[in-house]
Amino acid sequence: MNNHNDYLLRKISSPQDLKNLSISEMEQLAEEIRTLVLEKDAAEGGHLGPDLGIVEATIAYHYVFNAPTDKIVWDVSHQTYPHKMLTGRAQAWLDPEHYKDVTPYSNPDESPYDYYSIGHTSTSIALATGMAKARDLMGGHENIMALIGDGSMTGGLAFEGLNNAAIEKHNLVIVVNDNQWSIDQNVGGLVTALAKLRNSNGQAKENPFTAMGFDYRYVQNGNDLSDMIAAFKAVKDVDHPILLHINTTKGKGYEPALKDEEAHHWVVPFDLATDQPTTPVLDKPTAKTIALDVLKEEIQMGQKIMAINAAIPGVFNLDQFKHDYPDNYTDVGIAEQESVAFAAGFAKEGGIPVLFENSTFLQRAFDQLSHDVAANNLPVVMMVAGGGLSSESKTHLGIFDQVMISNLPNWIYLAPTSLAEERAMLQWAIKQRQHPVAIKMPTLSVPTDSATQIETDYDQIQYQIQPGKNIAILALGDFYSLGENLAQKLGATLVNPISANILDKQSLDKLAQNHQVIITLENNILDGGFGQKVASYLGKQNIKVLNYGQKRIYTDQTPLAQIYRDNHLTVEQITDDLKAL
Amino acid sequence: MNNHNDYLLRKISSPQDLKNLSISEMEQLAEEIRTLVLEKDAAEGGHLGPDLGIVEATIAYHYVFNAPTDKIVWDVSHQTYPHKMLTGRAQAWLDPEHYKDVTPYSNPDESPYDYYSIGHTSTSIALATGMAKARDLMGGHENIMALIGDGSMTGGLAFEGLNNAAIEKHNLVIVVNDNQWSIDQNVGGLVTALAKLRNSNGQAKENPFTAMGFDYRYVQNGNDLSDMIAAFKAVKDVDHPILLHINTTKGKGYEPALKDEEAHHWVVPFDLATDQPTTPVLDKPTAKTIALDVLKEEIQMGQKIMAINAAIPGVFNLDQFKHDYPDNYTDVGIAEQESVAFAAGFAKEGGIPVLFENSTFLQRAFDQLSHDVAANNLPVVMMVAGGGLSSESKTHLGIFDQVMISNLPNWIYLAPTSLAEERAMLQWAIKQRQHPVAIKMPTLSVPTDSATQIETDYDQIQYQIQPGKNIAILALGDFYSLGENLAQKLGATLVNPISANILDKQSLDKLAQNHQVIITLENNILDGGFGQKVASYLGKQNIKVLNYGQKRIYTDQTPLAQIYRDNHLTVEQITDDLKAL
Repeated sequence: MNNHNDYLLRKISSPQDLKNLSISEMEQLAEEIRTLVLEKDAAEGGHLGPDLGIVEATIAYHYVFNAPTDKIVWDVSHQTYPHKMLTGRAQAWLDPEHYKDVTPYSNPDESPYDYYSIGHTSTSIALATGMAKARDLMGGHENIMALIGDGSMTGGLAFEGLNNAAIEKHNLVIVVNDNQWSIDQNVGGLVTALAKLRNSNGQAKENPFTAMGFDYRYVQNGNDLSDMIAAFKAVKDVDHPILLHINTTKGKGYEPALKDEEAHHWVVPFDLATDQPTTPVLDKPTAKTIALDVLKEEIQMGQKIMAINAAIPGVFNLDQFKHDYPDNYTDVGIAEQESVAFAAGFAKEGGIPVLFENSTFLQRAFDQLSHDVAANNLPVVMMVAGGGLSSESKTHLGIFDQVMISNLPNWIYLAPTSLAEERAMLQWAIKQRQHPVAIKMPTLSVPTDSATQIETDYDQIQYQIQPGKNIAILALGDFYSLGENLAQKLGATLVNPISANILDKQSLDKLAQNHQVIITLENNILDGGFGQKVASYLGKQNIKVLNYGQKRIYTDQTPLAQIYRDNHLTVEQITDDLKAL
Repeated sequence: MNNHNDYLLRKISSPQDLKNLSISEMEQLAEEIRTLVLEKDAAEGGHLGPDLGIVEATIAYHYVFNAPTDKIVWDVSHQTYPHKMLTGRAQAWLDPEHYKDVTPYSNPDESPYDYYSIGHTSTSIALATGMAKARDLMGGHENIMALIGDGSMTGGLAFEGLNNAAIEKHNLVIVVNDNQWSIDQNVGGLVTALAKLRNSNGQAKENPFTAMGFDYRYVQNGNDLSDMIAAFKAVKDVDHPILLHINTTKGKGYEPALKDEEAHHWVVPFDLATDQPTTPVLDKPTAKTIALDVLKEEIQMGQKIMAINAAIPGVFNLDQFKHDYPDNYTDVGIAEQESVAFAAGFAKEGGIPVLFENSTFLQRAFDQLSHDVAANNLPVVMMVAGGGLSSESKTHLGIFDQVMISNLPNWIYLAPTSLAEERAMLQWAIKQRQHPVAIKMPTLSVPTDSATQIETDYDQIQYQIQPGKNIAILALGDFYSLGENLAQKLGATLVNPISANILDKQSLDKLAQNHQVIITLENNILDGGFGQKVASYLGKQNIKVLNYGQKRIYTDQTPLAQIYRDNHLTVEQITDDLKAL
C-alpha cells in the first residue's frame, strides 16, 4: 500500500476546492475515492457497497451546493466515506496510520460538515423536515436535503418524514438513492413502485411521490457525474419540496461486490486480490448457530415456526436457513415495528413466530413489544443479538434491550450463561404457549456446555446457586464468567439468575439471610436493568446490594476494556469496592 | 331514554342473523345503531365520529363474510361499537344498565369476534400480514382483512404493513376507510394522494397503491350499504392482496359532528338536544394551560419556539394556540417518530422545539428519544401528558414514560409537584440549551402554588426537604400530596425529588445518615422507574428503602382507587408496611 502522493484528492481540503475542477478531474477524483474505500476496507473492514455506489452523487453534491451552510442529512450515514474525504478528512484514507482518525458514521464532533451522529436507518427525512421548518421560522434560505436509500425507505419513519416533507412550504429536497438493495435484497410493494419508475425512465404515471404532491425528478444514471451535477443544479434553491430519484449501482467499481451485494454491504478485513477474509472464520458452535439448530429441529418435528427478521439475515446467519426453509422465513424489510406486530399476528393465528432482532434496532419497536405483544400476552419468541456493552459507535450501542423488554408486563427475558442453556431456553420458549419470551443471546464468549444442571422449564425461575461465603454474586447471562472469577477470588456464593426480569424471590430471601453483601453483574446499563430490581426487592432487608453494569452514558467507539474499567467491571475493582464498604 | 324494544337489532345475536335480512332491513339496522351510539355517548362519553361513519361498512362486512373464521382487524378499534352490537353485545347499548358491560376497544376477553386488545393506531395492517402468513403456513383459506382510517395511515407502521401486505401471496384485503379526517384535520402528502383518488372516482393514475402492486378498488359512497356489500363480495376469497379504498363520512347522521369533526371524534357526556357537555368545564389553571401560557410568553419575548404534536392538539388545548400562533405550531400527523426526529432537526438548527406527547403514544418514538435526541444531546423540550396510573384500558396506560425517558443518557426528566413548579421548569427548559428536558405533566390535581420555594435552575437537582424524623419520604411529582399526607401521619421527613431520573446524591447520603427508612412514591410502574434508582444508589448504605408505584402488570379499566389499594399506595397500607418491617 502507498500513500498515493500523486492523488488529486490531496489538493481537496474542503468542498470549496472542488468548485474549479473540470468534469474529467472530478471523474479522476471518483476513481481515487473508490480505490481508497477499497484499500481501507480491505485493511480495516467497514461499509463497502453503499460507499462505492454514492461517490459521484457526493462529488456532485459538494460541487453544486455550499456546505455547511446548505445542509445534507445522510440516512444511516454508512455511505459518508466519500463525503468525509471531500470535507477535510481524506488523510484518514490516504494514510494507513491515520485510518482510525475518523469514525464510520457522520459525526459532528469530527467536522462542521456533519450535523448529527446517525447510525439507524430511515431518520434523515424526518430530521430534514424539522431543519427546514426551523430555517423557515428563522427566516433562512439555505438548501436542506435528505439522502436516503431504497432499503431505508422501507422503515416507517421514512414514510412519516415523506408525508410531512411533501407539505413543506419552501426548499426541501429528498434524494432517494435507489440501488435496488437493502442490506439483503429489498422487499415489499415499494420495490415494485420504484421498479416501475426506473423501467419507465421516471415517466410512469403510477408514481407514489407525485401522488403525494412532490415535484419528482429522475436520474437514470446516478453514477454519471455530469448528470448528477445537472440534477443538483436544477433543484438548488427551488422553493418547494422535490423528490429526486437517482438510480445508482451499489458496489460500483468492485466486481465481487456487484456479484454478491449482500456480502459486500459491510465487510470484515479482506484480500483485495482474492476477496477472501484475511481473518479465518471459525467453524464452531455460536449463539447464532445454536438458535438455528433448534429452529431446524423443531420445524422437522412439525412445529409451524416462522423465523422473522428486519433486513439483517446476515447478523444471524439466516441466509442458508432462508434457502433451506423458504416457507419458514420472513424478512419484512428495515421495519422492526412491522416485524414485531407481524409476529403478534402470526402467534395469534396459532403459529410460532421466532423474531431475530438486534438490540439497538429493536428500539424502534418498543410500542409493539408492549401494545401488540405484551398487552395481548401472545407467545412470541424473540432472540436478541448485540445486547451488551460494546466498543460500537454511540448510535449502535445495544445497552437498552433490558430497559425495553424487562420492564414490560408479561415478557419473560432469559439470559443464558452457556450455549447449552441457550438451547434449552429456546426449546422451552417454542413449546410454551403462555407468554412472550425473549432470550438475550450472549455477546461475549460463553462455554458450549454448562457447568451446572440445565433447566428444561423456565415457567418458574429458580436460581442456580454454587454456595460460598459472606458475599453472593448474581451474574447474569454472559457476565457469568466474570462472576465465576470473582467468586473464586472471594470464596463467594455464585448465582445464575437465569432471567433479567423475573426474580426468584424465595432464593433472594435465603441469600439475604446467609450473606452480608449481594452483588449483581449485568451486561447492560444499570438504570432500568436487572440489578436495580434486585436492590429494590431487597430494600427492606438487612443486606447491602452492589449493582454493576454500565453507567447511564453513551460510549462512542470506546475500547471494551476501558468501558469495563470505567464501570468497575473488573475483579480487582469490585474487590476494592467491597473492602471500602 | 328507552330500551328500544321494537328494535330489529334485538333479533341480531350474531352476524349469522344478518344473512337473511333485506337491504331495507339492514338500513333500518344502521339507523338503530346510529341512534344507540348517540344515546350511549351522550350519557357516558366515548368515540363518536368514527363509529357513526363506519356503520354501513360494518353491517356489510358481517353480511358478506363469515366471522370469526374470516377475520377483520379494526385499526385502533375505536370504531367497533357497531361491530360489537352485531356480535352479541347489543345489550350494552340497548340497556343503560348494561352500558358498562363492554370495553371501548376490541377485546378478546369479551368476544371471539375480537382478536386483539388494540388501542394504538396504525397496527392493523402489520397484524394482518402476520395472520395471513400464519394462515398460509397452516394451509388455511379464511379471509384476512385490516380496516384502517386515513388518519392512522400517517403512522409509519401502517406503511411498513402496506409494504409487506403488497407481496402477500394469498388473500389479504386492506380497507382504507377514508373519512378525510385524523383526530384533527389529517395532514401531509397522503392527504393529497387520497384526494386525487377520491376526486377521480378512484381512476387517478397517480395511485400509490397500484404502484406498490395492489389490486385497487374504490367505493365512492362507503355509507351506501348496497355498494359496500357489492364491494366486499367482490374481494371475498380473492387470492391476492387488495386495497379497497372507501370514502365515508365521519360523524354521519349527527349534524353537530359533521360541522365540527375534531370536537366529535371523542366526546364527554353531552346533551343530545344542545350538543353541550353535561358536566361543566371549569375555567381554572391546569397543567395544560400553564404550559401554553409559558409558550405564549416566550414567543412574545422573541423565542423561536415550535409547539409540535402528533395529531392530538385537543389533548393539550392546542387548538386556540394553533389559531393564534400558526407559525409556531406543527401537527405531524399520527407519527410520533416523526414528531421527535422533527424536534431534533428543529433544535439542531437553533430553534426551540417543544413536543407535546401523550405517555402511551410516545412509546412509538423510543428510538428517536435515544438515537436522534439523546445521542446527539439536543435541547429538545418535551411535555408528557397522561403519565401515571389510570383507569384506562390496558392499551392506553401511561405507565412507561419513565421507563423510556429516565433510563436514556442525557435526558433530564422533571416531575413538578405544583403548577407553579411546572411553569418554572418549562421556563428553564426553554432557556437552557444543554440537554433534552422532559416534564411529566401532573395527571392528578396539584396545587397552583407551591408550599416551598420554587427553583429557577434545574441544571443541578437539589432536593427540597421538609425535615421530620426516622423516615424520609421521596414523593415524586403529583404523588407529592400522598407524600404530604403520609409525612403528616408519621411525622416523617418529606422530600420533593424534582427529577424522575437525576438523583441528588448528596441529599440522599445525608438522608441515609439521619433516617432509618427511605420511602419512594411515584406515579409510574416501579420497574425501571425512580424508586429502583434510589434503592440501587443506597444499596451500600445501612438504610432500608421501600419503593412504591405500580407492579409490573397491565391494569384494564381498573378503578384508580383499586389500583392504589393493589399497590399499597394508601397512607394506611404504607403505615402498616412500616410496622411490619
